[in-house]
Amino acid sequence: MINKVGRDIPDALLTNGREVYQGKNYMDGKYIQKASPRTRRCEKPVDTKVVDSLVEALKQCGAKDGMTFSFHHHLRDGDYVVNQVMAAAIEELGLKDLTIAATSLGAAHDPIADYIEEGKVIGIQTSGIRGRMGEVVSAGKLKTPAIIRSHGGRPRAIEAGEVHIDIAFIAAPTSDPMGNCRGIGGKSNCGSMGYAMSDAKYADHVVVVTDCLVPFPNMPASVEAIDVDAVVVVDSIGNPKKIASAAARISQNPRDLMMAENVAKVIASTPYFKEGFSFQTGVGGPSLAANLFLEQYMDEWGIKMGWAIGGICGPMVELLKKGKVGKVIDVQDFDLDAVNSINQTPGHFEMSASQYANPANKGAFVNSLDFVVLAALEIDTGFNVNVLTGSDGVLRGAPGGHPDTAAGSKCCIIVTPLVRGRMATVCEHVVTVTTPGDCVDVLVTDYGIAVNPLRPDLIECLDQAGIPHVTIEELKEKAYSLVGRPDDLEWEDKVVAVLEARDGTILDVVRKIKPYDPNQAE
Amino acid sequence: MINKVGRDIPDALLTNGREVYQGKNYMDGKYIQKASPRTRRCEKPVDTKVVDSLVEALKQCGAKDGMTFSFHHHLRDGDYVVNQVMAAAIEELGLKDLTIAATSLGAAHDPIADYIEEGKVIGIQTSGIRGRMGEVVSAGKLKTPAIIRSHGGRPRAIEAGEVHIDIAFIAAPTSDPMGNCRGIGGKSNCGSMGYAMSDAKYADHVVVVTDCLVPFPNMPASVEAIDVDAVVVVDSIGNPKKIASAAARISQNPRDLMMAENVAKVIASTPYFKEGFSFQTGVGGPSLAANLFLEQYMDEWGIKMGWAIGGICGPMVELLKKGKVGKVIDVQDFDLDAVNSINQTPGHFEMSASQYANPANKGAFVNSLDFVVLAALEIDTGFNVNVLTGSDGVLRGAPGGHPDTAAGSKCCIIVTPLVRGRMATVCEHVVTVTTPGDCVDVLVTDYGIAVNPLRPDLIECLDQAGIPHVTIEELKEKAYSLVGRPDDLEWEDKVVAVLEARDGTILDVVRKIKPYDPNQAE
Repeated sequence: MINKVGRDIPDALLTNGREVYQGKNYMDGKYIQKASPRTRRCEKPVDTKVVDSLVEALKQCGAKDGMTFSFHHHLRDGDYVVNQVMAAAIEELGLKDLTIAATSLGAAHDPIADYIEEGKVIGIQTSGIRGRMGEVVSAGKLKTPAIIRSHGGRPRAIEAGEVHIDIAFIAAPTSDPMGNCRGIGGKSNCGSMGYAMSDAKYADHVVVVTDCLVPFPNMPASVEAIDVDAVVVVDSIGNPKKIASAAARISQNPRDLMMAENVAKVIASTPYFKEGFSFQTGVGGPSLAANLFLEQYMDEWGIKMGWAIGGICGPMVELLKKGKVGKVIDVQDFDLDAVNSINQTPGHFEMSASQYANPANKGAFVNSLDFVVLAALEIDTGFNVNVLTGSDGVLRGAPGGHPDTAAGSKCCIIVTPLVRGRMATVCEHVVTVTTPGDCVDVLVTDYGIAVNPLRPDLIECLDQAGIPHVTIEELKEKAYSLVGRPDDLEWEDKVVAVLEARDGTILDVVRKIKPYDPNQAE
Repeated sequence: MINKVGRDIPDALLTNGREVYQGKNYMDGKYIQKASPRTRRCEKPVDTKVVDSLVEALKQCGAKDGMTFSFHHHLRDGDYVVNQVMAAAIEELGLKDLTIAATSLGAAHDPIADYIEEGKVIGIQTSGIRGRMGEVVSAGKLKTPAIIRSHGGRPRAIEAGEVHIDIAFIAAPTSDPMGNCRGIGGKSNCGSMGYAMSDAKYADHVVVVTDCLVPFPNMPASVEAIDVDAVVVVDSIGNPKKIASAAARISQNPRDLMMAENVAKVIASTPYFKEGFSFQTGVGGPSLAANLFLEQYMDEWGIKMGWAIGGICGPMVELLKKGKVGKVIDVQDFDLDAVNSINQTPGHFEMSASQYANPANKGAFVNSLDFVVLAALEIDTGFNVNVLTGSDGVLRGAPGGHPDTAAGSKCCIIVTPLVRGRMATVCEHVVTVTTPGDCVDVLVTDYGIAVNPLRPDLIECLDQAGIPHVTIEELKEKAYSLVGRPDDLEWEDKVVAVLEARDGTILDVVRKIKPYDPNQAE
C-alpha cells in the first residue's frame, strides 16, 4: 500500500491493525490501552539486590531463548554494557533467538553483528544503527526486519505493549544496593538517564549494571529501586572518554556560520520569536552555531528564551547560567558541561523519553516547542528527510528525536549544505523517509532557503523580513547541476528494516541492497 | 474464615481470589500483572489544557454514573477539592453511583456524608475516614462496604488493577497550563505530592485542580503534564491554615517525655542503632519527642542517622539542616518547615506513595527501615494494633503508613499511654486489627515496656541494656485494674468496612454497630 509520503509498504507488514503513515496527527484523540508488565513482588525486606555476575542476574530474571532485552544509549560510543550483557547471555548461558530493543546502537556494538550472523540475535529494535551492525542488517542477515523508531516512538511502542521488554538493562554511573540509579557521581558519568525511564517502568524485569556502588539511598533516582530486580557491579560500564566529550565547539567554518546566521534570521522573522519562546537544536556544526546568532538576536530584541529541551550540550548550559534561558529540560547529555550541570544548575532538569517526545501520551515537551533546528543526510522536494540510510542505501544513522521535534514544533528548520562531497543533499527522492515532509517547514542551505508550501504563513514572514527564498525544486536542480543526478539504488525485495513513524504507522521500509556484499565491500 | 489474627472474615468477601490475612510476607515473591489504563492520545500540539470549570473537565473526561474518582490528601483538613469536585459531579451534572477512592478523608469532607445518605456516593476507598462520613458509614448507610487501605496498600491495589480510577483529581498548589504540578509556589502550598503520583500514572483520565496557574514548564513536576487531560483553575483549593500548620511542637508533657526517653533507650539497645541507621516517626506527642532523645543518643555515640522517611515535619528538617541525618525522603509534609524545605534543602527529596510503602513493587523504602515509632488507639495482647475505630466501634481514624512501616522495619515500636481517660489502651482484643501483631516488636507505655515474644533477640537486647520490661498481659491487667474491663461492643452482621492488609488480603472487617443511631447520638 502506498502511504502519505509515497512509499510502497508491503501488505505483509500490515498485520495486527498496523497501518501505513497517513499524515501528521492522524492518531490524535485516539485511545491507547497501556501495557501491563508482570513483575515480582518484593514484600520481604532484603539488605541488598547485588548479585555476583551478569549471568546470575540473567538467571534470577528467568532469562531464556526468545526474550527481548532492552538497553539505553546514554553511554553513547563508550558503552560497554550491551556487549557485556549479550556475551553473558549468548556465550555463557547459551541463549538464542534474542531481540535487542535499544534506544540507540552504534559503532560500540560491532560485536553484536557476529551474533546476528550466527542467528543468536534475531531482532533489533532501535533508533540508531551504525557500523558493522548496520552493514549486516542491510545485507539481510537479521532474521526479522529491524524496527527503527524515533526517541518518542519508542516509549509510545513500549507503553502500548508493542515492544514487550522481558529484561531491561540499566547502565548506571551510580547505583545503591537496592537499585536507585543516578547518572552522576561515579567514574562513567552520563548525566541524564531519560531514555532508560520507560524501560524500567514497563519491563517485566530490570537489572542495573553499574561500576560505582554507593550507599542507599542514591537520590534523586533516575531509575527507582522499586522497579529493579537485581544490581550487578562490573569493572567498567563504559569508556568515559567516549561517553561525554569535552565541551562541544561551535563551528568556525564560514559556510556553517553563514547558514547558522540565516537560521537565526528565519527564526527572528516568525511570530514565535518573542519573550519566553522555546527552542531545541541538534549538536551538528551549523545547528549549534545557530545558538550563537540567536543569542545576538535575543540581546538585540531584549527577549529571553523560556525553555530549551533535547540532548543538551555546553552552549545551552552557558545560556542558562547567563540567565538567557529560563529552564533546560534534558533527556540526554552530550558533553561534560551538560553532565556536570543537570540537577545542579538551578533550572536544569532531567526528563524521561516519554516526557520528551512520546506522541501518544497527553502532551510531550516536543509538542510545545516553538522552534527546532535539525540536520539532514538528505531532503527531497517533498521536504521528506532522511537521517538513517547512506547514499549507498546502508543503515548508518538514527532518526533520534528528529521526527518528534519536527512534528511537534511550530517551526522546524532543516539546515544542511546543498551538497556533501559528490552527493546532492537536496534531491528528488530521499533513500529512506525518516521525517515526513508535512512536519518540515523551512530548509536553509548554503545556496538558499526554501519554505514548505504547506506553510504560506511562514513564506509571508520571510517576505516581510526581506529574507530571500526559492523553491526546493530550484535547490534540487542547483544541487544536481553541481554534482550530477545520482543513479537509482538497486534493491532486492527483502525488507531489512521497517521505519515506524512516531505514531506507530509505517513510514518507510529499507530493503536489502543489490548486490550488497559486505565482504566485497572491504 | 478465621484469619491469622483471629478475625472471622465472611466468605462472601472472599471472591475473585481474594484471601484472608495469612501473616506478614505471605505474598513475597509472587507475581503481579500491572494494571493498564486506557488513555487519550494527545498528539496534536495544544496551547493549553485549561478548561473553564470542573463541570467542563468532567464532561471532557467522559464522566458518567458508576465511575470511580480519586483524590489525595496533602491538603489535609484544609482540602476544598473533594467537595468541589463531588458537588460539580452530583449537583451540577446529576451523576450517581459514584465511588470515591481517596488516599485519606477527614472532617473537611463532612458534606460527602450527605451524598452517601442520598445514595449518590455508593463506594468509599480510603485510608482515613472520620467525622460525619465515619458516622454514616458506621451506621450502614454506604451501599457497599468501605475499603480501608494503608498508604502502601493503596498504590499496590491501583497498580494491580484492583482499584480502577476513571478520573483522578490532582489538587495542585501550582500547575502550568499543560498540567505540570508542584506542591509549592502558590497560596495553598503542601510540599510533597507523593500520594498523587500513582493516581496520575494509573488513572484513565487526570484533571488538575489548582488555584495558582504558573508559566510552562512548572518543574520539577510532581505530577507530569504527560498524564494530565485537563486543568481547572478554581478560587481556592484549600484553607492554608489547615493545610500545613506552624512547626510541630515537641511535647512538654512529662509523661510523654518519659515514654519518649524510653523509646530512645530501646532503640539504642538494639544492633540496628549504628552509623547510618534509618528512622521514621509519627507526629504524635511522644513519637515526635523521641526525636529529641534520639538526637542525644546519636551525639553521645557519635553517630548519624543515614536517612529518614515518612510524613515529614520541622524537627526532622532541623536534624537534616544540622547534618545529623543524611537524607530525608518525603511523601507528605505536616508543617510549613517541611513544606518550605522539600526540594530546597539539599538532601530533602520527594517520593511517591509506591516508593514509600507499596509492598508489591520491588522494594519500597519502608522495607529498608531500621526503626519506626508509632502511636496506637489500642493494642491487644497479640500486639495487634487498632488506629481506625474508636472504643464505640465507629470509624474515626486511618491506618496510614502504620501497617507498612511496621511490617517493613526491623524494629517497630508502639508508644502509647496505658489508658486514655476511661479507656484501656492495652486490651484483650482490639476493636479492629489495622496492624497485625506479627509486625509489632516493642510496646512502650507510661506503665512499662513489653516486647513481642516473636522477637527473643530484642528481649535479649533490652536485658543486656538493663531496660526493665514486662509481658503485655501484665500491662493489660494493669490497664484494666485502672479503668475497668470494657463491655464488649455489640455488632450487627452487616459489614460496613473491609480492612485490607498491605498485601491485599483481608485483615479485618468493621460491622454495623448495634444499636447505633446517629440521630440518637446527637
